[in-house]
Amino acid sequence: MNVPERILMGPGPSTVPSRILRAMASPTLGHLDPRYIEIMDHTCTMLRKVFQTENALTFPVSATGMAGMECVATNIMERGDEAIVCVNGVFGGRMVDVMERAGVTVHRVEVPWGETFPLEMLAEAIDKHPDAKALGIVHAETSTGALQSLDGLAELVHDSGMLLLVDAVTSLGGHTLKVDEWGIDAIYSGTQKCLSCPPGLSPVSFSPRALEVIEARKTKVQSWYFDVSMLKDYYKGSGKRAYHHTAPVNMIYALHEALLIVLEEGLEARVTRHQRLHRRLRAGLESMGIRYVPQYSLHTLNCIHIPDGADDAAVRAKLLDDYSIEIGAGLGPFAGKAWRIGLMGHSATQANVDLVLAALMDCLE
Amino acid sequence: MNVPERILMGPGPSTVPSRILRAMASPTLGHLDPRYIEIMDHTCTMLRKVFQTENALTFPVSATGMAGMECVATNIMERGDEAIVCVNGVFGGRMVDVMERAGVTVHRVEVPWGETFPLEMLAEAIDKHPDAKALGIVHAETSTGALQSLDGLAELVHDSGMLLLVDAVTSLGGHTLKVDEWGIDAIYSGTQKCLSCPPGLSPVSFSPRALEVIEARKTKVQSWYFDVSMLKDYYKGSGKRAYHHTAPVNMIYALHEALLIVLEEGLEARVTRHQRLHRRLRAGLESMGIRYVPQYSLHTLNCIHIPDGADDAAVRAKLLDDYSIEIGAGLGPFAGKAWRIGLMGHSATQANVDLVLAALMDCLE
Repeated sequence: MNVPERILMGPGPSTVPSRILRAMASPTLGHLDPRYIEIMDHTCTMLRKVFQTENALTFPVSATGMAGMECVATNIMERGDEAIVCVNGVFGGRMVDVMERAGVTVHRVEVPWGETFPLEMLAEAIDKHPDAKALGIVHAETSTGALQSLDGLAELVHDSGMLLLVDAVTSLGGHTLKVDEWGIDAIYSGTQKCLSCPPGLSPVSFSPRALEVIEARKTKVQSWYFDVSMLKDYYKGSGKRAYHHTAPVNMIYALHEALLIVLEEGLEARVTRHQRLHRRLRAGLESMGIRYVPQYSLHTLNCIHIPDGADDAAVRAKLLDDYSIEIGAGLGPFAGKAWRIGLMGHSATQANVDLVLAALMDCLE
Repeated sequence: MNVPERILMGPGPSTVPSRILRAMASPTLGHLDPRYIEIMDHTCTMLRKVFQTENALTFPVSATGMAGMECVATNIMERGDEAIVCVNGVFGGRMVDVMERAGVTVHRVEVPWGETFPLEMLAEAIDKHPDAKALGIVHAETSTGALQSLDGLAELVHDSGMLLLVDAVTSLGGHTLKVDEWGIDAIYSGTQKCLSCPPGLSPVSFSPRALEVIEARKTKVQSWYFDVSMLKDYYKGSGKRAYHHTAPVNMIYALHEALLIVLEEGLEARVTRHQRLHRRLRAGLESMGIRYVPQYSLHTLNCIHIPDGADDAAVRAKLLDDYSIEIGAGLGPFAGKAWRIGLMGHSATQANVDLVLAALMDCLE
């Protein structure tokens, strides 16, 4: 396999430590082998720690991040249900699409791309749509780099008898994220962002309240592959396992190793590292006259305006060719107007920050 | 990672060659990196060769085998459509479930588990349900070890204006399978069977006729993750790639290497090897007085009656503990009554055949 070594500073995947690549290359076991079951159980236990939750139903969906969104949306919602979905970038918009495909009537709440939702605005939407079953919101909007505060939101959502659904694809393992303390009912993430594991799995977690809603469904979940009512019999912590699908065994090895690394560093230390390196990068970029797109920026993804006169594609190509650094292009209305510089997991190092600043300075000359 | 080395002779995964494990552990690239796109394109090109098809729309779904079934079923069928599905084991039954969840009216054609469908019976079903949009059938039924002949079926199906959908999870790369010559319109498989790649991907292929049906849909595909109308813009052979989801990059490396190995051996030689070793195993088992379940047995999966007096779980545990050999338990009505011995891909060697015979003889003493 002839593959160049990249420094992955785009919107994901981030650079994967060789320790994880080695773990992934361990011999494939059968998906019902006792040793594999141990590894899978331990993976789910570590996932609970990283999500900061006691939720029994916490496991990695056997597909990439967007499958997690679909798993959460299609298990919680039924055809004919109503939902409130907050849209301020690609991924909020995608949640609308995923829900509408499942026959849900979606009430969109919108602010311009790059902005975030003030709590009052969400309170208003909840008041306006009291029959909604759930409110969906993106914690870390990968398309704009905006960090959404979830402070106080669960109380409002729960007081109206709704469930809180959260997209944490770009925050899990990089930003503070407290599933239980924040009252989140269903959450999904990806492995290839701040966990620095290869893409291929989507960690999800469902609260007991969400599980009750799922158990009270009148209809089968439209997707067999993502049906939590069957998956929970495979991922449950004990007793007889019901075979569902053939788990992606080696990807689970990789996630197991990635979570070990996260817990060895410690969640708080990891969040602090991402914050510190974001500040260093931000100071460097701003000293070059480069402005950030969002007011409330993620530490893990830095979305910046492309400086006047710079050639978007040419600069990114030069970064890749001369430095082997990947940064991300803009999406949607930001195409050709913004770059996205990831500082996620193993990619978030002082050396990488200083290198990308030097490389950008060179490429923008 | 502390993982025992197993000889995987169950219903999958099969033993993964170290060459594939090493390829999989190559550095993770971004999913839009030019070098990754080359690897992905080459993977799709090789998949076409292994499926023996010219179908442009041939790619690996980013999830395990059952996702391929869901991808095929939900893209071809729309809510309110009718389908004929042939059920003679777990996987035909699952196809019914997947379709019904998509709002399809399913006409089941059934024979007892372990048996296969004579062409006349399928002709009758087609006559009886002329409004069906498709006929779904399992080529290699992993739950019973039965090999279904597809000879002459496509003509009947096409003459009635239907599409032919085929489950080839346990045959691709081990049995003769000629997608174009046999007139198959949509097919799915898994990587962890006769390709000896870790589980995590599901190769699919759609004929131009199937693509026309998909393009004429009145409604969106219910699954965003499996929507071929968007996926085709990512997997197309040339031009600008539309970002859909983050591809499981390292799993694609693994599949790339697995397909290289298949093509180095040659499809015909590979099929012959599986046939030869099946015969050797069969002769050995029958000389021990052990009988096969199906009349038409797969070469890749040998489903046998558990001999009278043998303790199902104890024998399998002894095989695992004393020989590190995994064989499969029976499913559904065969639970406790049958074993499934896989001879797939890298696991299909003369040494493994002779070893498993010797080990069984020891365990059955």
